[in-house]
Amino acid sequence: MSTLLTGIAELVTNDPAWGDGHADPGDRLLGIIRDAALVVADGVVEWVGPAATAPDADDHRSLAGRAVIPGFVDSHTHLVFAGDRSAEFAARMTGTPYDGGGIAVSVAATRAATDDELRSLVAARVAEMRAQGTTTVEIKSGYGLTVVDELRCLRIAREFTPHTTFLGAHVVPPEYADRRADYVDLVTGPMLDALLADGLEASPAAYVDVFCEPHSAHAFDGDESRTILEAARARGLRLRVHGNQLGHGPGVQLACELEAASVDHCTHLTDDDVEALVAARGTTVATLLPGVEFSTRSPYPDARRLLDAGVAVALATDCNPGTCYSSSIPFAIALAVREMGMTPAEALYASTATSGRSLGLDGRVAVGGPAELAVIDGPSHLHLSYRAGVPLVSALEP
Amino acid sequence: MSTLLTGIAELVTNDPAWGDGHADPGDRLLGIIRDAALVVADGVVEWVGPAATAPDADDHRSLAGRAVIPGFVDSHTHLVFAGDRSAEFAARMTGTPYDGGGIAVSVAATRAATDDELRSLVAARVAEMRAQGTTTVEIKSGYGLTVVDELRCLRIAREFTPHTTFLGAHVVPPEYADRRADYVDLVTGPMLDALLADGLEASPAAYVDVFCEPHSAHAFDGDESRTILEAARARGLRLRVHGNQLGHGPGVQLACELEAASVDHCTHLTDDDVEALVAARGTTVATLLPGVEFSTRSPYPDARRLLDAGVAVALATDCNPGTCYSSSIPFAIALAVREMGMTPAEALYASTATSGRSLGLDGRVAVGGPAELAVIDGPSHLHLSYRAGVPLVSALEP
Repeated sequence: MSTLLTGIAELVTNDPAWGDGHADPGDRLLGIIRDAALVVADGVVEWVGPAATAPDADDHRSLAGRAVIPGFVDSHTHLVFAGDRSAEFAARMTGTPYDGGGIAVSVAATRAATDDELRSLVAARVAEMRAQGTTTVEIKSGYGLTVVDELRCLRIAREFTPHTTFLGAHVVPPEYADRRADYVDLVTGPMLDALLADGLEASPAAYVDVFCEPHSAHAFDGDESRTILEAARARGLRLRVHGNQLGHGPGVQLACELEAASVDHCTHLTDDDVEALVAARGTTVATLLPGVEFSTRSPYPDARRLLDAGVAVALATDCNPGTCYSSSIPFAIALAVREMGMTPAEALYASTATSGRSLGLDGRVAVGGPAELAVIDGPSHLHLSYRAGVPLVSALEP
Repeated sequence: MSTLLTGIAELVTNDPAWGDGHADPGDRLLGIIRDAALVVADGVVEWVGPAATAPDADDHRSLAGRAVIPGFVDSHTHLVFAGDRSAEFAARMTGTPYDGGGIAVSVAATRAATDDELRSLVAARVAEMRAQGTTTVEIKSGYGLTVVDELRCLRIAREFTPHTTFLGAHVVPPEYADRRADYVDLVTGPMLDALLADGLEASPAAYVDVFCEPHSAHAFDGDESRTILEAARARGLRLRVHGNQLGHGPGVQLACELEAASVDHCTHLTDDDVEALVAARGTTVATLLPGVEFSTRSPYPDARRLLDAGVAVALATDCNPGTCYSSSIPFAIALAVREMGMTPAEALYASTATSGRSLGLDGRVAVGGPAELAVIDGPSHLHLSYRAGVPLVSALEP
């Protein structure tokens, strides 16, 4: 059955075909259609364009002057965890710095949780995201850190999304603190073996990620990161990298060199790093996670510098129990506009089209594409940052 | 019919009677009861205490491990307006500074709106707030700026709350730009007359407020503000003041001297201002509105300095179409913790007990008091700032 959606004050398509006519650069970037209509059938867009020229459909629904956008693509989350770290957050707000050490607390709680407990925690988080307009989510492992627990976390994540990422190299777990090389061997050997036991196509992880951060005693330095990423790449897995979060490091350069789909955080960058990201823009997206800087009271990455240089910039939440337990892309957008010099249009494009690109998705609202849409309770995408903190967006249910 | 509420992992009472036993200063301030229960009947709290000692009731409802807090008291809002100013926001984010001039845009749209249009806009905003945990709201006029339109806006506001504030002195309207003194005469004469036409008890305004801001060409200087505030006070109306928002000014001193219930913004303060607020702490609350600094990209007020000095600090949204179209107290709390040095407990107390005090309310969850409560979808009040941007709170419906 097909449904005609009308009453769309503004439709964001991310499609250059609809952008050409606009004088405003934001409207051009977003391919905006004003007073738009959509026909949707079986989860697929059948028609898109101005309401005045819309065809008939079996059913009709008016959105009463609201804006419709592509559903958010949250391309960096750590949703598979148990336990509560709100006290660590409160302590940090009164001065305790973040160094990645708290991850071990989540690891202990996650290992102790049953499959069903983890499954219901992930389900609640995915539902919470959907209620805030996120229709596609990437989920990383990284709180198991044993062969069995990483595999278990990835299999549970896979129940919710095909966009799963193996992050065995999140931190060196406490039991390996004195023998880091053994843990790198575990990741590149038995863990990758387990992921690929039934072949690449059947792997519960689409990507392999590393927390490359020489400024944390818990994370991985450049050599360790390279070893893990190269091993994963040699076995046919695609790459993502946590890079340059706490200070300058080799993560960005490594990600660009190894053609990672995304390098995430990008807070501390030299001019050489920016140049590398520009050169790699066709392959590697720079994913900014401003909720982390908000929740750790750290300086924000300079999105304006990256955009002006020509880097492909994505925006995601990093939803995780330690550095940012926010599942809200609208909040990330508001921070991007307030703190990182992005325009409202750039921030929306970054959290739909570019974050989608980092997961191999098309990101446009176009005929034949998926009807993964969200509705803003307001007349335009500007309201996402204009109305900061207000729950205005939700996924458009079929 | 009485209802027993159990499954409350943490109950915030704001009641010193429950605070005494706690070592943690935040738990003491908030009068926290862990594993608590409540009995509520006809909108009144009949019993409060540990679940283990709870009495029976006609009905029973479990909150399944959530936290319960007093509903937020949003003591500073401008909800009666029409029109859309999102483009002004977007322009400001790329460099156009705020000077109060845009208020005239909302005035024109508000004057042009029918009563029913305004009523339905206010209803939607109050509902949006309630869905975010705000159970008590103050509403100012200030987008009418004629005798008829100010009265009309206040009467509509009064349909939603008894906590209404006359803000005829929001800005000098464009038609009075060359004769400011005439506008002050209009406010102190015909406007106050109209408010009090049926006597003080029947006035549609409980308070009179002035935007005292020598740094805006549109707002009122110290002498004009004093004239208006003294006229209102002489006629028996209580006072609120917008003071020291855009730069240092006389607003705070004036508010303290004239025993205003609240002086709001308090961003630019001298040591003398802080001293005046300390001396007036039994009468005058300093209400901070960090959503404004977020949405205007301005420096935040120093809450820590005020709290350490002993000032009574409240927190509210300032929800308005120009400087902060956020209706979210949780967002204000997250900003207060991230940006203003408040602890999560101080921020919650400020947006319930102290903001309530500025409206003459008790602010505690106590036997015989109103059951105006909100539920956090999380185990403690820490989640309000830990989970920034996530819609976790809603008013507890009877």
